[in-house]
Amino acid sequence: MATYKAPLEDMRFVLNDVFKADQLWASMPATAEVTQDLSDAILEEAGKMTEGLLFPLNRNGDEQGCSWNDGEVTTPDGFKDAFKTFAENGWSAFSGNPDFGGQGMPKSLAVLFEEMMHSACSSFALYPALTSGACLAIDAHASEELKAQYLPKLYSGEWSGTMCLTEPHSGTDLGIGRTKAEPNGDGSYSITGTKIFITGGEHDMTGNHIHLVLAKLPDAPAGSKGISLFLVPKFLPDADNNPGERNGATCGSIEHKMGIKGSATCVMNFDGAKGWIIGEPNQGLACMFTMMNYERLSIGLQGLGLGEVSYQSAVEYARERLQGRSATGAKNPEGPADPIIVHGDVRRMLMNMRAINEGGRALAAYVGMQLDTAKFSEDADAKKKAEDRVALLTPVAKAFFTDRGLDTTITGQQVFGGHGYIREWGMEQFVRDCRISQIYEGTNGIQALDLAGRKVARNGGKSVDAFLADARAWLDANAGNAQLADVSEALDAALCLLKDATDELLAQAGANPDAISAAAVEYLDIFGYVIYAWLWAQMLAATDGRDDDFAKAKRTTGRYYFQRVLPRAQSLFAQLSSGADTMMSLDGDLF
Amino acid sequence: MATYKAPLEDMRFVLNDVFKADQLWASMPATAEVTQDLSDAILEEAGKMTEGLLFPLNRNGDEQGCSWNDGEVTTPDGFKDAFKTFAENGWSAFSGNPDFGGQGMPKSLAVLFEEMMHSACSSFALYPALTSGACLAIDAHASEELKAQYLPKLYSGEWSGTMCLTEPHSGTDLGIGRTKAEPNGDGSYSITGTKIFITGGEHDMTGNHIHLVLAKLPDAPAGSKGISLFLVPKFLPDADNNPGERNGATCGSIEHKMGIKGSATCVMNFDGAKGWIIGEPNQGLACMFTMMNYERLSIGLQGLGLGEVSYQSAVEYARERLQGRSATGAKNPEGPADPIIVHGDVRRMLMNMRAINEGGRALAAYVGMQLDTAKFSEDADAKKKAEDRVALLTPVAKAFFTDRGLDTTITGQQVFGGHGYIREWGMEQFVRDCRISQIYEGTNGIQALDLAGRKVARNGGKSVDAFLADARAWLDANAGNAQLADVSEALDAALCLLKDATDELLAQAGANPDAISAAAVEYLDIFGYVIYAWLWAQMLAATDGRDDDFAKAKRTTGRYYFQRVLPRAQSLFAQLSSGADTMMSLDGDLF
Repeated sequence: MATYKAPLEDMRFVLNDVFKADQLWASMPATAEVTQDLSDAILEEAGKMTEGLLFPLNRNGDEQGCSWNDGEVTTPDGFKDAFKTFAENGWSAFSGNPDFGGQGMPKSLAVLFEEMMHSACSSFALYPALTSGACLAIDAHASEELKAQYLPKLYSGEWSGTMCLTEPHSGTDLGIGRTKAEPNGDGSYSITGTKIFITGGEHDMTGNHIHLVLAKLPDAPAGSKGISLFLVPKFLPDADNNPGERNGATCGSIEHKMGIKGSATCVMNFDGAKGWIIGEPNQGLACMFTMMNYERLSIGLQGLGLGEVSYQSAVEYARERLQGRSATGAKNPEGPADPIIVHGDVRRMLMNMRAINEGGRALAAYVGMQLDTAKFSEDADAKKKAEDRVALLTPVAKAFFTDRGLDTTITGQQVFGGHGYIREWGMEQFVRDCRISQIYEGTNGIQALDLAGRKVARNGGKSVDAFLADARAWLDANAGNAQLADVSEALDAALCLLKDATDELLAQAGANPDAISAAAVEYLDIFGYVIYAWLWAQMLAATDGRDDDFAKAKRTTGRYYFQRVLPRAQSLFAQLSSGADTMMSLDGDLF
Repeated sequence: MATYKAPLEDMRFVLNDVFKADQLWASMPATAEVTQDLSDAILEEAGKMTEGLLFPLNRNGDEQGCSWNDGEVTTPDGFKDAFKTFAENGWSAFSGNPDFGGQGMPKSLAVLFEEMMHSACSSFALYPALTSGACLAIDAHASEELKAQYLPKLYSGEWSGTMCLTEPHSGTDLGIGRTKAEPNGDGSYSITGTKIFITGGEHDMTGNHIHLVLAKLPDAPAGSKGISLFLVPKFLPDADNNPGERNGATCGSIEHKMGIKGSATCVMNFDGAKGWIIGEPNQGLACMFTMMNYERLSIGLQGLGLGEVSYQSAVEYARERLQGRSATGAKNPEGPADPIIVHGDVRRMLMNMRAINEGGRALAAYVGMQLDTAKFSEDADAKKKAEDRVALLTPVAKAFFTDRGLDTTITGQQVFGGHGYIREWGMEQFVRDCRISQIYEGTNGIQALDLAGRKVARNGGKSVDAFLADARAWLDANAGNAQLADVSEALDAALCLLKDATDELLAQAGANPDAISAAAVEYLDIFGYVIYAWLWAQMLAATDGRDDDFAKAKRTTGRYYFQRVLPRAQSLFAQLSSGADTMMSLDGDLF
């Protein structure tokens, strides 16, 4: 059966030993109160909560799913009560703005909490994740009046939030959306249109739902430059700011999906619903993108969290399942067979999972710290540099976490053999739940296009150069670290490979407008494998001087990463270098 | 929505133009009647049947699934009637022995028919697939009396067959199975034990189920050398060979699975059930392996068939879905956006799918011809050589078809964006249905171990050398073919890589007993990519002199394979070359 314990030791290692996150927090007034003691204690509490409150909901949540009845949605047994406890204990306010009742916790801590939530119950995790995203957009762009009215209710968990972007004919291409917003003359707007794939659009866990809706004003320019963002509550707040009159925002149905069945994915009908604009007219997409960097990283964590719970479950099964004998002689001679963890191929699967999960956790914390710096630093240069790094790495993290997360959950399922295919064992659910993370919040192909086009080609690779300079400086500064002796050469080669791939991408892009799109996914994957190599080197270096079990395992896993995972980047470079021709030359009718 | 048309043009190209299968068939008395006209006509009929009779069952089969009630299993609506039509039209006798009513069709034709069945409705396809497997074992090893009694009923589709191997504690390791067979003194045996994961163990489509059951005789040696094979009918045939007395073989429950929900996966309880031995005592595993080469290839075709239907559906969606504009200017200026097939990344996904599917189809036909030669050739040398080739390539085909099949179905789902995650669209079902093919009939890790250990290391790489000699001879003989101009160098390098990988594997195996298991999956994948390269070269060569659309598409896809897919083998070689150390050195407790 599936099993989960929050990986606290590794989380503390990454935050405290590798990145010394507390030094960053101490350097910024907004996070100065977050000491290492506090962050350790928070992680421990988050571990208890996710293991004890959320993980037990996960299997039934999948079997029972959500149900729709005449516009109302019922979540699986236990979700509502668990959310009440979750909110009462302050978890829904975790990263919120303290001016409106949030706890102001840094993202570098939040990413680890989010990973735990996705490990424990990904469907549940999505409800507070969407609310956090909505809060970010409101906090960054809404009027003070709207903030004061909505943020405290959202942070307290009394209300919840959604993001309404997609329409039946308009997904990636938001510019062709048809939802309209007509001014009512009193500062409010009347919103009409249909939105689909709305996570948490309707459910029974909170007393009000606050929808953030993309729509077009009557005089809006065509395309993506004519989109505005509106706040549309399910119930219009009354004079006491309690849910009052029912607004014209209703749930027409919920989707039947491959996974995340405990998460209500709604068709939302806005029928002259009353709303208020967030930010400036026609700037809706920019407002949404404020939160995108946060949300895309968080959705990436779905892949990471599911990879972790799949790994832990697979290890337990591999220790218990007796089948065959070790190639070097029986290891369990009293039993009918040896535990399958003795077999090379089972270890290959487990090591792949470990190497990817631990590399991902380090990247999550690294990007989290960059987000914290970008948001809270009072040093303008550091802030600007961090903003650029976040912009560069967010698509990498979202796509690489989730692509590798799917690989990892599939691998964990494979360790279980036939039992991995049976629902009761829980392993196949992780695969199904993980699969959506590659699709929503911008498909991974779109993430790759964002990276290769907007973040790399548009500035001639300058952001990559800055990243590579940091990695090289780190490598130079740590050249004497004994733990790097057998990997520094490989890391050096990996950094060169990313440089070469970037140059190749820029050269192709100069010659062929289709080149970016054709090369983007391979480029993103190269980036992912290379940055994991740097992060693994940092983790290895941080174990220097230790000789405990944790350090031993970390070192073996790190060497595994360099020897058995990183080489994939070489092939990707060969693929990328072949150019776009074999993709673009075939007539569309001949497919 | 999902869509399927049997890919007849490509199938005929592979059989007729690339491999000239009719020349092989004509050379052997058992298949001499199968002309190209006949095989073309059969493929066309198979296409009509799978498109018209089976494909319409697929979506509901998944939603409705099978149901168990007091030992009886009901298949989804339409399955029973469709099977009746299927059997009446002779499809269940397709590859059967003509001496007992079979049609004696060659495997090289059957593989294409099986691919179509898995494309159209994989859950349905499994019922006749298991029956075919049971027939093969009966035909090869049972007494003449049992053959005459059972084969005609199985070929006619009145009865169906199963294979009962796995027990709750005994999957890969069949030697520790506990099912017992006690002689009754009259030539029959009394079988007692529990078998799990039995495909088609109970269902409502046929009047009797014939179980082939692995069990141990009272005096059997321990382990896998003490396993015998028994034929155990659900109903004991009466004097007229009609279903008579109910035997003690009952279905205790069916599994709730990730996919193939229309296929009943049964727990089978044998409670002193009457059975008859097939083959010699304690030779049951050898008897099962007779059919394994056939069945493993057929299960591989599940991956291939699902990859094909996913590809076709993705192409249709990519032509219809309007989203964004081409990087080289609007291609559908009258519409709100261009069809997504204009985008490089969408084409990358489609080309990946094509290149893998078409390479796989060629390998299926190639291995099918080797199976035909091994079974039907009257030339002892040719027969022996083909047997060796089949033994070498069967694990490659099974694992590589299904691993790449999962990749392909996931890619097809990704083309659909958010709609790919919604059940109604059908794309996520292909992923779920495909996933089992990597697990059952020997997990893909076990296939890799079979290849690297039994088929390569055990004979010092001789079978690989023979394969490479054939590929090199072909390349030399076709060096002047204009279509090979830009790929022959890459093919040459690929053949060298497989040789190097084999040498590396043998060297590691000599030094470390764990090396085979640790390197096996990478080795198998290298083999897969390299043999697809040879097959793609053969396909490219076969288009020489043609200038039609089919040939153009084939050439572009072949070049895509060499430039964008084959390079993956390089990384796998680097991974393999790093040795087993990083896998084996970590203490099992430290995972």
